Amino acid sequence: MHSNRITNLIQIKYPIIQAVMVWVSGWKLASAVSNNGGFGLIGSGSMKPELLREHIQKCFKATNKPFGVNLPLLRKDADELAKVIVDEKVKIVFTSAGHPGKFIDLFKKNNIIVIHVVPSLKFALKAESVGCDAVVGEGVEAGGHNGLDEITTFSLIPKLVDTLKIPVIAAGGISDGRGMLAAFSLGAEGVQIGTRFAVTQESSAHINYKNAVINAADKDTHLILKKFGMARVIKNKFSQEVFNKELNCEEDEKIKSLLSTKREMKGIFEGDLEEGMIEAGQSSCLINDLPNVETLMKQLIKSYNDALSGIEAL
Amino acid sequence: MHSNRITNLIQIKYPIIQAVMVWVSGWKLASAVSNNGGFGLIGSGSMKPELLREHIQKCFKATNKPFGVNLPLLRKDADELAKVIVDEKVKIVFTSAGHPGKFIDLFKKNNIIVIHVVPSLKFALKAESVGCDAVVGEGVEAGGHNGLDEITTFSLIPKLVDTLKIPVIAAGGISDGRGMLAAFSLGAEGVQIGTRFAVTQESSAHINYKNAVINAADKDTHLILKKFGMARVIKNKFSQEVFNKELNCEEDEKIKSLLSTKREMKGIFEGDLEEGMIEAGQSSCLINDLPNVETLMKQLIKSYNDALSGIEAL
Repeated sequence: MHSNRITNLIQIKYPIIQAVMVWVSGWKLASAVSNNGGFGLIGSGSMKPELLREHIQKCFKATNKPFGVNLPLLRKDADELAKVIVDEKVKIVFTSAGHPGKFIDLFKKNNIIVIHVVPSLKFALKAESVGCDAVVGEGVEAGGHNGLDEITTFSLIPKLVDTLKIPVIAAGGISDGRGMLAAFSLGAEGVQIGTRFAVTQESSAHINYKNAVINAADKDTHLILKKFGMARVIKNKFSQEVFNKELNCEEDEKIKSLLSTKREMKGIFEGDLEEGMIEAGQSSCLINDLPNVETLMKQLIKSYNDALSGIEAL
Repeated sequence: MHSNRITNLIQIKYPIIQAVMVWVSGWKLASAVSNNGGFGLIGSGSMKPELLREHIQKCFKATNKPFGVNLPLLRKDADELAKVIVDEKVKIVFTSAGHPGKFIDLFKKNNIIVIHVVPSLKFALKAESVGCDAVVGEGVEAGGHNGLDEITTFSLIPKLVDTLKIPVIAAGGISDGRGMLAAFSLGAEGVQIGTRFAVTQESSAHINYKNAVINAADKDTHLILKKFGMARVIKNKFSQEVFNKELNCEEDEKIKSLLSTKREMKGIFEGDLEEGMIEAGQSSCLINDLPNVETLMKQLIKSYNDALSGIEAL
């Protein structure tokens, strides 16, 4: 059986990690992924501390396999979320969007494995230097928030692998076994898959969101909000309005005014495809169905092995 | 030995095609690639018709292996270049930057194989419908001119492979055997490699250009000139000036005024790293040496086979 530094580190059968997205990734999705041999993550980005506690407790009841929590470090109440993670004896944390050293002492004191999400070599070196156990290199193909340098998975992963001592997980653009194989080819020891898991039965995203991903073509996502937390979204009325205001250099206040309502909740959880923010990766164009997690995991493994069997030495 | 629809179509040993870049890709580079088992291309983008004729004639003398010519269809004198290609009995043409049907009747009447470079599914379907024999799917990682939809190799290649009947060559972000293996994993039947071949002994790029690529970090390229022929370049004084003017919505005329001198020639051929345009792909960050083509081809094959031998089934 396949075994490497990532499967050993977080004790999983398959080196497949479910990425989180706000309003998508609760205990139900995370436990389903872990129960099927992958690694499930609870996304705390859209949760208050007590709600996170509830999701962690439910996840422990739903699976006896390892799972983790994603903690966005820039959250104002990040310290409260970190405390819940420690209290509830979560053993693996993925940190993102902030300085990786923020809670490293707290987590390490409690024997928690810390994996940090990075968009470039510079941030990866910082994560390694403060003592993170691994990094997720996330290419600009990914849905949701992205690094401003717009580095793609194809360049980012080999660069990280060549430079770091700690292992690298690849994210961004991966939605089937071909993408998994490509990521491993580039030197990754695990893959983190977001949009594809958001479009499963167990994801708490609205059915309209799931259908929007299924219907998306290759050119149907774009990057918006470069000054206010750049994100990749499916093009719609709201995103096009932001995009055009940015393109025309309208005042920051006019762009910010569009963000005052909860656009992510509206789009992803309530399914408002006109006024909501539909965060999704560029590989949406490869997603055509709405399986449950068990079926999806089998598809991922099968399409990976099929792709590998078609490759010959030169 | 590895054989597929691309190696059979253009009669090469290895499914490795050298991409062209202005001021880089003459008969010397093209013949070296073909003589070492790949497929060399003469780039006509920086050549007048009679100079192209000279390069084709020299290439036929330098190799008895197949090679081709790249024809940018938007060139004002494209019809004269096409006539030279037919006259000189070139058997394989790569077309780019324009409607793929433009010379298809002329080329097909002369039994010339036509492969068109595309940045998205929409243009690929057009190329297939007019009778092209294959497409190059070029992700936005690539150096030089790119599609405005900014589709990356990771999403583009599987989408093309799933939809087209004709075979797909992958370009954009590939500079070593790991990238080649990733491209084949995504379903490509060949790879087209640009910046890596521009940084070889046989490339006619200036040594300053080659060193700029060798020194580039992952975040050191960006996309400029979105309204006037978007291109990926290494950041320098000139490109940053354009980038800032675009970011600040300065008048089109002010941006165009920066382009009046021959920026590509200045940067790539004359080696002016401040005022020239240094077209290069995002995978510049993976390029660290200046081999000759024979050595590079061996490195590509070895690193491909090494990467493949490290991959296991799941």
